[in-house]
Amino acid sequence: MSGLLQGPVLVVGTGLLGTSVALACREAGLEVLLRDVSSEHVRTASGLGAGVPDTGAAPQLVVVAVPPDHLGAEIAAALAATDAVVTDVGSVKSQPLAQLKALGVDDLRRYVGSHPMAGSERSGPLAASATLFEGRPWALTPHQSAEASAIAVVRELIMLCGAVPVDLSPDDHDRAVARVSHLPQLMSSLVAGRLAEAPSSHLALSGQGVRDVTRIAGSDPTLWKQIITANSEAVLAMLDEVEERLARLRGFVAAADAEAIAALLAEGVAGTRAIPAKHGGVARPMASVFVSLPDQAGELARLFAHVGAQGVSIEDVHIDHDPGRPVGLVELVVEATSASTLVASLTARGWVVHP
Amino acid sequence: MSGLLQGPVLVVGTGLLGTSVALACREAGLEVLLRDVSSEHVRTASGLGAGVPDTGAAPQLVVVAVPPDHLGAEIAAALAATDAVVTDVGSVKSQPLAQLKALGVDDLRRYVGSHPMAGSERSGPLAASATLFEGRPWALTPHQSAEASAIAVVRELIMLCGAVPVDLSPDDHDRAVARVSHLPQLMSSLVAGRLAEAPSSHLALSGQGVRDVTRIAGSDPTLWKQIITANSEAVLAMLDEVEERLARLRGFVAAADAEAIAALLAEGVAGTRAIPAKHGGVARPMASVFVSLPDQAGELARLFAHVGAQGVSIEDVHIDHDPGRPVGLVELVVEATSASTLVASLTARGWVVHP
Repeated sequence: MSGLLQGPVLVVGTGLLGTSVALACREAGLEVLLRDVSSEHVRTASGLGAGVPDTGAAPQLVVVAVPPDHLGAEIAAALAATDAVVTDVGSVKSQPLAQLKALGVDDLRRYVGSHPMAGSERSGPLAASATLFEGRPWALTPHQSAEASAIAVVRELIMLCGAVPVDLSPDDHDRAVARVSHLPQLMSSLVAGRLAEAPSSHLALSGQGVRDVTRIAGSDPTLWKQIITANSEAVLAMLDEVEERLARLRGFVAAADAEAIAALLAEGVAGTRAIPAKHGGVARPMASVFVSLPDQAGELARLFAHVGAQGVSIEDVHIDHDPGRPVGLVELVVEATSASTLVASLTARGWVVHP
Repeated sequence: MSGLLQGPVLVVGTGLLGTSVALACREAGLEVLLRDVSSEHVRTASGLGAGVPDTGAAPQLVVVAVPPDHLGAEIAAALAATDAVVTDVGSVKSQPLAQLKALGVDDLRRYVGSHPMAGSERSGPLAASATLFEGRPWALTPHQSAEASAIAVVRELIMLCGAVPVDLSPDDHDRAVARVSHLPQLMSSLVAGRLAEAPSSHLALSGQGVRDVTRIAGSDPTLWKQIITANSEAVLAMLDEVEERLARLRGFVAAADAEAIAALLAEGVAGTRAIPAKHGGVARPMASVFVSLPDQAGELARLFAHVGAQGVSIEDVHIDHDPGRPVGLVELVVEATSASTLVASLTARGWVVHP
């Protein structure tokens, strides 16, 4: 750290994100002030060691961590009441700027938006953790009139939280999350919505594929309706792209044009390869090894101990429980070069392995 | 087993599914004959212990395991050449019947279609396993003129493979897989297709959500173009439902109608709850415990050993590697009642846990 960020840090909104930022700042030794419309949330966060209820002391940095609909008003209030640098952690970055403009806030030199990619499945201060942001991407999205010194302070906050800053303009950020987050969310919800009324004999054929595709459809509609409406322009552009492709696909299916269908599917294959490798490096070829195991506490540990003893690093794991009985099928995703020796060694140790 | 299935079993098509069926039959002590357009595949399957190259002996059961486009012709050939019961393991069940009718095959009493829900990511006899179907759903889809004795033989094959029979008519099966398999596949491909040309700074914001939604988009377009065209009627019905919802959603977003968006998202939440619990029983409330760990062989084993020592059964696992450095975030899905004690005990053992 360059020592630019000295505190105090005022956190407005002590939910999951705000309290997690506060805990990380406290761990770095900074003074943290807490404010929330819910005094219970402030007490809880304070009790967790995230800081003290706002004393009115002049902060160096204000972190606004309130629901999307309230961002503009809270940022404006923070700019008016203090001389501090102000950031927010909202999921959409152009809407707060528009709200500030509508509120007549002209001087935005001290405001720098940001967006950590973490934690939306859980909520509330009790779910918070100083390490929530460790190694996660955190978009840093200064608008054109933001001061360089303000940007530097927010960048230091991101580093202090252990996150990886990703520099984007507010509009560019909103287009990015429309593509990699909001569109997948909406399509997942549409697919899952088609299951709600299905006969149970149809749902009995559900496999890992439909479970994966619909997992995020279980997210909170109250949060997501705000995110989607706050980013409506970029989301509409993505919906239009998908609507156009879907209409084309429908035409290919109706015409039984197998080659055109294959070409659309191949676009998808290319897309899965475009997602960066989880380590941020070059994608390495992976292979799956499937192992059947009794669904008992301890069996997974025994399996991973055997895998670890081979020096093989597990890139990903999927567990597919059997619908009819308590036997699980575990998919271990490992580097392709390790797969065959892993299969051999696990088989030798008595595991039921499907290569 | 009731001993109805005595063999010999002739397997036509010695790819992943055919060879796996053959291996399971061999393990049950049945005589198995193998046939494939690729004599190399037959040699490989035979070398794995899946049976012997077809001797011309009269089979009791023929299992047709060829690509979707060839099912009708191979089923017809098997019915003409033998007095055996004939089944197939294709992904779509009404198309083979239509093909048989078009070929002028009127007597279908000995034909009973079926469809195991297993194994499409991998292919070829080398990927086969006698336990591929263990505990998996396997649709049993007799048409109206199928003989009861033929249905009983195919049901016994399913049980012998360790699978769970799910009884459905051919049309009903096709509607079911359109909903729980083909639609998720196509939507996953459309979402993934939107990533192929995206700037890398946008893709840098990719989280676990988009990875889950797009995982199956990596599947083989050559196989899937056949499945989709073979089930075009049921797939079109699903695409129409989604197209209608997508147009509605687009209208809600354009009108900034947050409540209507939330209602559509809530349909998705209901859908995720409709998917049967992985054990086939009543869904139990689950909770996620997040653990940071160094990305080293052995660390996962150590973690699972600690979890196992607590007697806690892990329902699911997700590994989210950090984009910027080699630290992984592991999500352990456990019964909600176990979560808080698990968090406490892992924390006490020095793990960095996010509750």
